[in-house]
Amino acid sequence: MNEKAVLNENITKDEAKEQIKFLKKELANLQRELKEAKLPVIILLEGLGASGKGNALSEIISELDPRLFKVYTRPGTAPQDVRRPYLHPFWGTIPSNGEISILEHSWYNIAFNKIYEDNSLSNSYIKSINTFERQLCDDGYLVIKLFLSITKQEQQKRLLALQDNASTAWRVSEHDWVGNEKLNDRLEIINSFIEKTDFDHAKWEYIDNNKRWFGSYTMLSLLVNKIKSALDMGVPMVHSRKEAKFDIVKTTPLKDIDLSEGVSDDDYKKILKAEKKRLQELHGYIYKKKIPVVLAFEGWDAAGKGGAIRRLSWALDPRGFDVIPVAAPTADELAHHYLWRFWKNIPKDGHITLFDRTWYGRVMVERLEGFAPEVRWKQAFTEINEFEKELSNWGAVVIKFWLHIDKKEQLRRFEDRQNTPEKQHKITDEDWRNREKWDEYEVAVDEMIEKTNTVTAPWVIVEGNDKKFARLKILRTVREALEKKLGLD
Amino acid sequence: MNEKAVLNENITKDEAKEQIKFLKKELANLQRELKEAKLPVIILLEGLGASGKGNALSEIISELDPRLFKVYTRPGTAPQDVRRPYLHPFWGTIPSNGEISILEHSWYNIAFNKIYEDNSLSNSYIKSINTFERQLCDDGYLVIKLFLSITKQEQQKRLLALQDNASTAWRVSEHDWVGNEKLNDRLEIINSFIEKTDFDHAKWEYIDNNKRWFGSYTMLSLLVNKIKSALDMGVPMVHSRKEAKFDIVKTTPLKDIDLSEGVSDDDYKKILKAEKKRLQELHGYIYKKKIPVVLAFEGWDAAGKGGAIRRLSWALDPRGFDVIPVAAPTADELAHHYLWRFWKNIPKDGHITLFDRTWYGRVMVERLEGFAPEVRWKQAFTEINEFEKELSNWGAVVIKFWLHIDKKEQLRRFEDRQNTPEKQHKITDEDWRNREKWDEYEVAVDEMIEKTNTVTAPWVIVEGNDKKFARLKILRTVREALEKKLGLD
Repeated sequence: MNEKAVLNENITKDEAKEQIKFLKKELANLQRELKEAKLPVIILLEGLGASGKGNALSEIISELDPRLFKVYTRPGTAPQDVRRPYLHPFWGTIPSNGEISILEHSWYNIAFNKIYEDNSLSNSYIKSINTFERQLCDDGYLVIKLFLSITKQEQQKRLLALQDNASTAWRVSEHDWVGNEKLNDRLEIINSFIEKTDFDHAKWEYIDNNKRWFGSYTMLSLLVNKIKSALDMGVPMVHSRKEAKFDIVKTTPLKDIDLSEGVSDDDYKKILKAEKKRLQELHGYIYKKKIPVVLAFEGWDAAGKGGAIRRLSWALDPRGFDVIPVAAPTADELAHHYLWRFWKNIPKDGHITLFDRTWYGRVMVERLEGFAPEVRWKQAFTEINEFEKELSNWGAVVIKFWLHIDKKEQLRRFEDRQNTPEKQHKITDEDWRNREKWDEYEVAVDEMIEKTNTVTAPWVIVEGNDKKFARLKILRTVREALEKKLGLD
Repeated sequence: MNEKAVLNENITKDEAKEQIKFLKKELANLQRELKEAKLPVIILLEGLGASGKGNALSEIISELDPRLFKVYTRPGTAPQDVRRPYLHPFWGTIPSNGEISILEHSWYNIAFNKIYEDNSLSNSYIKSINTFERQLCDDGYLVIKLFLSITKQEQQKRLLALQDNASTAWRVSEHDWVGNEKLNDRLEIINSFIEKTDFDHAKWEYIDNNKRWFGSYTMLSLLVNKIKSALDMGVPMVHSRKEAKFDIVKTTPLKDIDLSEGVSDDDYKKILKAEKKRLQELHGYIYKKKIPVVLAFEGWDAAGKGGAIRRLSWALDPRGFDVIPVAAPTADELAHHYLWRFWKNIPKDGHITLFDRTWYGRVMVERLEGFAPEVRWKQAFTEINEFEKELSNWGAVVIKFWLHIDKKEQLRRFEDRQNTPEKQHKITDEDWRNREKWDEYEVAVDEMIEKTNTVTAPWVIVEGNDKKFARLKILRTVREALEKKLGLD
């Protein structure tokens, strides 16, 4: 907040108007540079009622190319948003590389309204916001947070002016007058909240908007300076942050997993039937109690992910689950934060999402093939723990399965696929190439499991040499987790 | 409805159960064939209360690969859906090529509920549905419509059974008992509606589900037969339909457009200011009255679309409009009906969407470059008229701009771009290639305008040799259209 903007506090109105013209053109030029540099920008526009947010928005975009920015008005307040984690709709507003999102009201507005109500401030809320903004900045997003402020008297004057004009009178409600009454109290609340969320990587900027021309001049100067500086020096990355702490459970390295267990055909059929029956029941309860469930499937090629997902899904009510197959990211997905496409597919409450491959691609294929820079995939362990923590705080059951087979068994299955005409489509050159990197992958997978095996989103290693054994273990794991969550264990 | 399914009406329960097992495997095999043949399938599951839709759904998917189908439960009933045309959410449910969408309740359910209420049946509703299904079939979608039926007595029995079981009692409401009371009346209404929507290209199938095993057997047989036949012979295309009638207004061929008009700098500034001011006002009214506005921009390369869109957008409240730049379709878009990506971007009511290039690509670049087969782009004139008619019936203002310049002016602008370093990024080899095809394009554009210049969604040819004149004409056209819609003209 104390950053010194290069602006003239004593500017006259005429000088300011000249400057505003110039700054708008400058912003339009910078927009082109952003596109070229692939630098994404998020501008949050918060402020008191009648502080001129609409006007500020018009000033910002007045010379911009409308194909390269997008305005979101009160995101996160749609009726359907209550069925997802509260950050979910905001992940949907982050821009593509080189583009600009402007949020008139943002995740802060939801926070402000919450505090107005009971003046309490949940720490987890601030933590979530901090994490979210930090994750964006670490990925190269420039986050600019503006707060437009006016005095109680000025607000009164503006509300009256709106009321007196036939074409704008409808915009003033009882609610606004209550806000005016309580303006100073609210400002105090806001100030304290702003202090707590004035992160190094995403600082707040107050805009004194009592005089619109002065407000516009200040705001445009700030935007130009911040964007220029990000283009010159990059978005401030968050090097010095304390390592986040997670409750990690110790795991067994893959090489020590006993893969000899199996199950007889008779037992398989009997147990499968019982597990399915029970899961069907539990799925009904989950739906009724609006508990969301996220199931992540990873494993070696040919380890049996597809078959396991099918068996599990056949035990579920098809109205209550989705399977999300995760392939190489599309151009659009590559132009966003890597978690973006997973946030988009989070289930509604009461629903189950099965991810066939997951966000862990970041620390496996993206790490080993060099698709993500080292500094970024190393940050991913924390980012992923944070992501899953967010889901579990929301109330979700989160389980991650690693389908494990040994190298010999993989070879057997690859050869079987190659030699069976109906299965040939399941084996590609890439599978063979990945197989050559087995040892590198094993190191990566061991590290991944070790660093992300949290209490709230545990890994379950599934011994997969015997497919039937593996399927039963998955069904049982899910069943037990749901029973536990429902208090039926 | 009278299609003879190859099934045994006198089958015993045991025989049926054997058949069901076999049919499920068959369906799973067909799913793989669908994927290979890139044939998309939509299954609508309608039926009386407690007729076993949930169970039927489980039977259908029980052996399917969950990565290749998606289930939608009561689409179109989310709170946000009321702000879009009622077909909008259903366009969102159509599958990719080779995949299956199953809709438990569909566009028909909304219709049924409407008729229950007042027993009136809007003709335009049936027309919309007919058009929608026909457009899908013409594009190669297989649409299967199932209606599950049971008797009043059987329904009563099932509701009581649900009620008596602690884990399912919550599923039975007063509403269900009212339905049971009125079952026979409702069935009559439904029958008459089904008759009216039993199109050749998408027929209804009744499933007698009084005995679940018989219902499952019938349903699975039907699905297998219909999918097999579509794989063998293709989806029935709608050759013999009567040409839809639209109110077409006669237009002037491009070669007869007078491009000599211009405007002085002084007049431009003065008029621009006045138009902007008025548009700003009107935008507020539009928002308040929840009138949606769709503005489509097409024109020659370098005709000034970008500049015109910028000028217009600067006159609008940024909270109330979106600009959608339309580029070559992505892989995902190519795997859907070509109108899919445009339906997705229809504005909310009270909002404005500016399309920078549009669905008319179908009859320009896709026609001339051979991206769409002749039979398909020829159907597009009607499809597009229907699409725009749907928007206008919904209450939208729809205007389409063709920015027109002559060949000489284009050359001047191309050369200017080539010779000005800051503009070089705006000129590509493709632009030059397109220029060589000017005459072919002119034929296509003349035909396009001639066939789609409807009263409700008119083309406006914008004389673009003078950029300022063009911008003013666009502002004036939009302003007048809004005034007319608002009754302020």
